[in-house]
Parts: sequence; C-alpha cells; structure tokens
Amino acid sequence: MSEPQPPAQPAETPATAEESIPGEAKGPSKNELKKAAKEAEKEKKKAERAAQQAEAAKAKEAEVDLSTEFYGKSPLHQSQSRPNRPRTQIASLKPSLKGEKVLIRARIQTSRAQGNKMCFLSLRQRTETVQALVTVTEGKISKQMVKWTAGLQDESVVLVEGSITVPPEVIKSATVGDVEIHIDQIHLISAPDIRLPFSLDDASRADSEIETPGVQFNKVLLDTRLNNRVLDLRTQTNQAVFKLQAVIGELFREHLVKAGFMEIHSPKIQGAATESGASVFKIGYFKGEAFLAQSPQFAKQMAIAADFERVYEIGPVFRAEDSNTHRHLTEFIGLDLEMAIEEHYHEVMEMLDGLFLSIFKGLRDNYKKEIDVIGKQFPADEFKWREGPEGTLKMTFKEAVDLLVADGVDREILDDINTENEKRLGRIIKAKYDIDYYIIDKFPMALRPFYTMPDPEDPTLSNSYDFFMRGEEILSGAQRIHEPGLLAEIMRSKGVDPEALKSYVDTFRMGCPPHGGGGIGLERVLMLFLKLNNIRRASLFPRDPKRLDP
Amino acid sequence: MSEPQPPAQPAETPATAEESIPGEAKGPSKNELKKAAKEAEKEKKKAERAAQQAEAAKAKEAEVDLSTEFYGKSPLHQSQSRPNRPRTQIASLKPSLKGEKVLIRARIQTSRAQGNKMCFLSLRQRTETVQALVTVTEGKISKQMVKWTAGLQDESVVLVEGSITVPPEVIKSATVGDVEIHIDQIHLISAPDIRLPFSLDDASRADSEIETPGVQFNKVLLDTRLNNRVLDLRTQTNQAVFKLQAVIGELFREHLVKAGFMEIHSPKIQGAATESGASVFKIGYFKGEAFLAQSPQFAKQMAIAADFERVYEIGPVFRAEDSNTHRHLTEFIGLDLEMAIEEHYHEVMEMLDGLFLSIFKGLRDNYKKEIDVIGKQFPADEFKWREGPEGTLKMTFKEAVDLLVADGVDREILDDINTENEKRLGRIIKAKYDIDYYIIDKFPMALRPFYTMPDPEDPTLSNSYDFFMRGEEILSGAQRIHEPGLLAEIMRSKGVDPEALKSYVDTFRMGCPPHGGGGIGLERVLMLFLKLNNIRRASLFPRDPKRLDP
Repeated sequence: MSEPQPPAQPAETPATAEESIPGEAKGPSKNELKKAAKEAEKEKKKAERAAQQAEAAKAKEAEVDLSTEFYGKSPLHQSQSRPNRPRTQIASLKPSLKGEKVLIRARIQTSRAQGNKMCFLSLRQRTETVQALVTVTEGKISKQMVKWTAGLQDESVVLVEGSITVPPEVIKSATVGDVEIHIDQIHLISAPDIRLPFSLDDASRADSEIETPGVQFNKVLLDTRLNNRVLDLRTQTNQAVFKLQAVIGELFREHLVKAGFMEIHSPKIQGAATESGASVFKIGYFKGEAFLAQSPQFAKQMAIAADFERVYEIGPVFRAEDSNTHRHLTEFIGLDLEMAIEEHYHEVMEMLDGLFLSIFKGLRDNYKKEIDVIGKQFPADEFKWREGPEGTLKMTFKEAVDLLVADGVDREILDDINTENEKRLGRIIKAKYDIDYYIIDKFPMALRPFYTMPDPEDPTLSNSYDFFMRGEEILSGAQRIHEPGLLAEIMRSKGVDPEALKSYVDTFRMGCPPHGGGGIGLERVLMLFLKLNNIRRASLFPRDPKRLDP
Repeated sequence: MSEPQPPAQPAETPATAEESIPGEAKGPSKNELKKAAKEAEKEKKKAERAAQQAEAAKAKEAEVDLSTEFYGKSPLHQSQSRPNRPRTQIASLKPSLKGEKVLIRARIQTSRAQGNKMCFLSLRQRTETVQALVTVTEGKISKQMVKWTAGLQDESVVLVEGSITVPPEVIKSATVGDVEIHIDQIHLISAPDIRLPFSLDDASRADSEIETPGVQFNKVLLDTRLNNRVLDLRTQTNQAVFKLQAVIGELFREHLVKAGFMEIHSPKIQGAATESGASVFKIGYFKGEAFLAQSPQFAKQMAIAADFERVYEIGPVFRAEDSNTHRHLTEFIGLDLEMAIEEHYHEVMEMLDGLFLSIFKGLRDNYKKEIDVIGKQFPADEFKWREGPEGTLKMTFKEAVDLLVADGVDREILDDINTENEKRLGRIIKAKYDIDYYIIDKFPMALRPFYTMPDPEDPTLSNSYDFFMRGEEILSGAQRIHEPGLLAEIMRSKGVDPEALKSYVDTFRMGCPPHGGGGIGLERVLMLFLKLNNIRRASLFPRDPKRLDP
C-alpha cells in the first residue's frame, strides 16, 4: 500500500531579488556600500540560520521519530515466528479490565483524525466494535505515527497493542462502548489495494434511514452487494444473519439427534432425472450424462427401507427452474428428514412441528442480540407462534380454502392455492390469531408428487402437509407410499414411467416399513424468521438463474 | 403379497376301477355277487366316511381357527387410525422385564419351524436381534397361525405382540440373548415381493469364515451388494458403519463449535472451473454452463476474508477423475475448515490434530460396541495413535523422504511420495512407533496448489501439511496466500490465469487476515479407522466412474 499523501499546501510567495538587493544603476555611496555589505552579511547570516533551522527541523523530523518500531506495515505474514502472545477479542473487553494491556487483530471500520496529534479508530471484529485512540505522547507516540495511522484505509486489518481505559461517557458508536483502547503500537497486516465499492456504514443502513427526508446516504443495491459479497458479508447485520443460519442448523440437529435420528449423506449426482416435474440440471459424466439431485427424497426413503428408522440430511439441493423471484434459488440447503411411522403420519407431522418450535424458541431465547442487530437494518415485527397447550394452529386444505372464500376469493380458482393466495391466507390468519406459523394438512392428491400416500377414505386427498411462516411455504412433507404396486400405479396415473425409476421402485420390493418425512428450505426459514425480504440475503453466495459468481 | 405355497407333495396313486370291481367275463356266482354287493356297500360307506371326514377336516380347518384375528396380513398402512399403543425397541429388552407385554415392529431376519406346532423367529431392529417364538396354544394360537408365521419370507416387516420371557440359556444367535418373546399376535406390515438377491446372513460373513476349508457359504460380492444396496445396508455391520459415519460428523462439529467455528454452506455450482488440475464436472446451466465444485476451498477462504474468522463446512465435493481404485469416489463428503491465524500456520495444524484426536478418542471410548460389530466382518488391528505429552508424531517431508531412503527407496524418485511409498512409509512408522496416525509438514511448493503460502526461508518449500491414517492421506492443508500480488504471481508460475479466477483473486484485494485450513475426506477416515478396505463400503450410495445407481 502506498501511504496517503498530505494535502498540498499553497506555497508562500518568496521575496524577490529585486526587493532584497537594491539596484546599482545610481551608483552607491561608500556608506551605502558599507550598509549594503552589512545588510548582505546580515541576510547571509539570516539565510544561514534559516538553512540551519530548516536542516535541524528536517533532522528532527527524521531522527526524532522514536516510534518507528511502534507502527508500520508488517512484512508479509509467512509464519516467520511464533512468540505465542495471546490475542484479545473485542467482545471480551469490559471496564473491570481497566489498565490491562491487550493485543488485538481487527479491521479498521473507520478512522477520524483530530488535528495532527490524535486519531480515533473504530476497530471491528465480526459483530463487535470498540473505539481506539492514538495520541501523540512524548517519547512514545510521534506525530508521524498518528499521521500514518490516520492515513490507513478503512477495512485494513491491523494488529493493535494498547491498554484498556474507561471513557467518561459510553461511546454510542461502538457496540462495546464502555471501554476504549489507548494504542501503544499499531501494525498493518493487510489492506485493501483497491477503492472499496461501498463503505460498511453505507451497507449497514436500513432503507428507512436512507429515505429520511433531508439526508443523503448512498444506497447500496442488492446486486452491488452480491457482486462484492465478501465486503457485504462483513456488515454486523450479515455477521449476525449467518451466525443464525448456523444456529438453525445446530438446533435442527440437536432436536433430531435427541429424537433418535441419524445423519446421512446421499449422493447429489443421480443416474436418472428425479421425482417431480421440477427441472433438473444435467451433468456430463465421463462418456455419459447424469443429473443433479433436486432433493434427497429417494435416498432418504431408501435409507428407511434399509432400516435406519430415522434419518436426516443437511445438504445442497438443485433446481433448474428459471424463477427469478425473491424466494427462489437454483441451489439451496435442504434440511430433510424421514422416519418410519408406527400408526399414523401425524407422528411425522408432530415431529416436524416440535422441531420448528424448538428452532423458533432457540432463536428467540438465546439469540436476541443477533436478532436485534439484524432488526436495525431489516425492521421486522417479532415472529409469533402459538405456545401453550392448544399447540400449533393446524387446518386442512379444505378449511384453508373456506377461509379464503370467506375473505372473498372465488372458490372456483382454489383447486390450488397460489403464492398470492398463500400470502393472503397468511394475512387472514395473522389478523385472526396473531401468529406467523401454521400447518395445512390433507392436500389434494392432484397437487402432490407421485410418492405421496393417498388418504385412506378419500382417494382424491392425501396424507400430506405444508408448513408456513409469514404466509410462505417453508416445508412440504407427507406419508410416502411404501407398497410397490400402488406406487407404480400412481406413477403411471401421473405420467411417470416406473421403469425409468426402477431402482427406486425396487426399493419397496424388498419390504419397507410405512414412513413419512419432510424437507425444509434453510434459507427460507432464515429469511422469513428475520423478514429479510429476499432469499439471496440468506445465502452466503447465492445462485440464481443469472448469478454464478462469486 | 402372495402367501408362500407349501412344497408340492407327490400325489398318492389312487386304486383303479379294474382292481376294485372284478371283471364280468367269467360270470359271477350268487355268492360271489352277494359278496361283491357287500364289498361295494362297504366301499361306498368307506368312501362316504372318507368324504365326511374330509369335509369335517375341512370344516374344522375353516371354523376352528380361533386365531384368525391374531395373525395375518395387515391392510395397507394409510394411517387409518391412531390407537396410540407404544412400541418397544429390541435394544431395551432385558430379563427384569419378564412377563411384560410388548408390541414390536421388526424385520424377520430368519425363521425356523419345529414340526407344525412351533416356529422360531429371529427379529431384527438395526444392530439388535432377539428370538421370538410362536407355539400352538389351546384357544389362542392355532396350527394355522404357526404355519402362516413359518411361511413368512425373510426380511418381512412384522408387528408382533407378545410377552417377555427369560430362556433357560442365553440365546447365542441373538444380540439380546437373555430374553425371548412369546408371540401372542403377529401381523405382516410389508414383505419382499421378489426373491432377495442374497440373505443377510450371507452378507454378514467375514471373508475368513467364507474361506474356512470344509464349509460352503455364498460369498456376496461387493458389486452385488452395491447393486442391492438397500438390502446390503441392513446388515448389522452396515448399520454400525453408518452410525459411526454420523458420529464422526458429530465429533467434528462438536470439537469445532467449542473452538469457536461457525458452519457455512457454500455453493457447489461454480461459474468457473476451480482450483487445481483435478478435473471438474461440467453442468448445463440454463443457456450457459457451470461446474461442480471440487472443494469449498475458494468459498471458505472468502468467508475468512469476510471476517467469519473460523468456519467449517460438511458437504459433498465432486471429482471428475476416472480413478477406479479402492479409495477414490467421484462424489464424497468433505469435512472442511478454515481459520484466521495470528502468528503461525501451526495454529491450524494443531487445531486439526486436536480435532482428529478427539474423533479417534470419541470413537474408541464411546462406540466400542459398533467397532466390535464391524470387526467381526472386517477384522482390524486396533487403530493406534500417540497419546500423552509428546503428542502426535510430526515430521517434515524431508524427514519422511530420509526414512524411505533408509528403508531402501531410491532418493531420486522421491521428489514426490507416491501412493505406494506413502503406504511403505506407513509400514515403517508402524514398525518403528506402533502408531497409525501421523503428520507430514513442509511439503515442496512444487507439489501444492497455487494458493499455498511459501515457506519464509526456503521458497521451494511451503507452509503445508498432510495427515495420514494407516499409510493413506486423509487430510491436506496449508497456510494460504492472502496477498493478491503474490497470489497472482504464483498462479502464473503454475500456469493458472489469475483473470480466469478474478473474483477469487479480488477477494484478497479487499484486505484479508492471514489464514489456513484443511480438508478431510469423511469416507476415508471411516474406511481407514475401521479398515473396511474399500471406500465404497464407507459411502451410503457410492458414486464412482462406473456407478450412478442406486
């Protein structure tokens, strides 16, 4: 990195020769000559003094910087040595540690020089920031060190040594505002070598703030963010979003492992295009071709036929649908489970319901801080669900249709409930019950994939359910058909050739317990719980029909 | 399912008319006629009696079966009702529960009729089996019920009701041998409707048992197993193998979450063919094309540049290499991690070492039962590592070469250590230290991918390491280059165009802390810890250049 240049000062106009040395045209008198010689002597001495002073000043500047070893650019980190000096996390700083020395690696979020003797830094680690201060100190911190520090670019990674102090007032701009670091040493580990496409402050603002009349902020568009995702991900909002993404996975596993589920990993490369009408991506596979799994549906059912009893999988699923909406990705993370059932598929539905409740509760009870951080940029009314003995709101597809009809939707178009009416239903239920989470059971057989078990009494209905958050579907599941004859029959009735999926159908010819399951879209749960409004914000490096990079 | 037919009995030859009715050619005497009439009458009565008896027997068979409701085929399970009767797990059975009634859903592993009054079943759930017995009992269990039970095909799923008894002697063929179930009711839930390609007993034998002179067992070949993987996976061995696969994942996560790592999910669909020379699969992506990620290398480094500090990922990785060996798959599960480093890349190496030790220890200390089950079919000397203060054996690449040279390998061919010499090194180290796990550090730069950080003193060496189990590589890792200038330079020197991987290189132009990591092949760890000898046995549904199904 090149060091920043100080702003150019307007040069002072020097005295001209004409002014300082009188002209000789008149011919000088002796006295005048004497006087002139004296003057010249004086001038010479003055110039010499000035030169000496300048030299001295220059020398002082060069020599007197006693701080050179306390600041500067570190050599490229190639693991040259290992002194074993512990680093401190900003999150662990607190007033009771006053006076202690700390060594902190952090980003400079912003810096602000005050005159030429003092510079404030906002140091950041993930979701935490703290204010640090470098100030000219006799024998320790030179003006040059302050100047160099003030010139560091935002988003530089620095190693800072200093002591913990307690500021007279809490520093509101920092998340850890009750302490301040007085810097003794600062070294640059890594710095941007390009002009950053946006500042983290700009990237962290809520739309409402940007739209405040009378202020002018740069709005960072979603596409700009995604094109520069590494920078965008550094906002405190995104640090919290992806922490919660990981937490949802943890809560999912924790609940299922307790319930006796085992993790499986099923192949994403498939010999045959799979289950439903949804398009699949085609792969060149040596001299032949293959397909990317659009879900682990077949594999997890095969795991049940293989007696694993209760299995779950967390893994990518692929959809070659050219859907450019706020809620579609071509690759997302499926949280899938499948389990043998004893008496009724509601065993599965209840397992899934318990799973969601434990995820919601886990998020609300233990991650309030992250939810609040995200709420600053993406304000959301708190996600609500029914707690207490009556349990989650469940209704049949027919009852859902009746609710929509009562709200004025034409019954004739309600053979299926489209996205728009799904949302409308969400609003109806929100208004009626003040909840954002509910289950719809007993979907018409015509709307479900061929492996769905029909209802025992009405063959036009099925043993299947969807789960909803804020009026959007986040889970689809059902009892499956475990009898190969019926499976083949329904495949044919839905225009699928059982021969094309022979190894799947054959699975059930080796005997299989009754079973059911469901698949959850991780990014959708994250987006809807936090109301991020676009699924791309819930995916680390999102993939859609138009985005493959970064 | 059609019920199994009893084996056809040879029909008894009926008496012919010629024999029973004498010819009339000679002309009978009166006495003869009288006698004949008497005989005929006798025959008639006999026939009538026989017919009556047959009818009675038939009637008896139809009427007297008082057990019909206690056995039979259940109607297709479509969740007709939900009586809420709890099921019992075989694993929880014990003699102290003697006399208690239980309801168990299980597979019939084998059945054995004793005469026509008794039938023994071996009932199986995952890794556990118990003996059950159905025996003719006045007013409760009919001969027909016993016969029907004896006719059930192996691998049928049944629902059995009975009481727990304690056999006089432990039943050696069952894993839960100190109890026996006396069956009151048995219903068939699902049965194979094909002839099974192999029996689970055959599929569970060790090679040594099959090769015992004088016995004749069917050997089930690996290909046959994989073609019928659902059946193969039901062996107790495989139930244990995949339980341990899940356990390794759990131990991996547990260790890393404690150390402050966060789970990420990176996209498997990539816009550019990635990092190294290894071939990648090409995908049709709408009107363009894309590639399957051969590792999450770039994404996890980008997560570090995005300040997530310590990340891990468990997900599929894809290799389009036409390698048909015991240890290559085209799709496997990568256990990947990446972390920022403070002083030295050995921080990462030690993190990975601690991770492996906690996996090994977790397996050995808590899953002895599963390891022993697997050991019966795949005998293995116990996996050993160095415990205690001196820690894991670590050596440099140069030291490893010296060991091989001392063992007689020509130094000239040791610019790289090939698979054969890797194994030889494993044997040398095993002989010298009696351990199966060690680390080789400081690989030549020429052998490593372009993103590897060179050694600070000798630029022909690198800050990189491999980890080994039983002489096979299971992890590769390094400090990475976080400086874009050096990265581009080394890319060019290795024939990679930095422009082709622009968004990756640009990552480091936004500032990035020094970092390092590693990638572990889950199936290799599982295979080598258990000595399964072929990686396909460690993958639920393996994919190799020749296998895409099931």
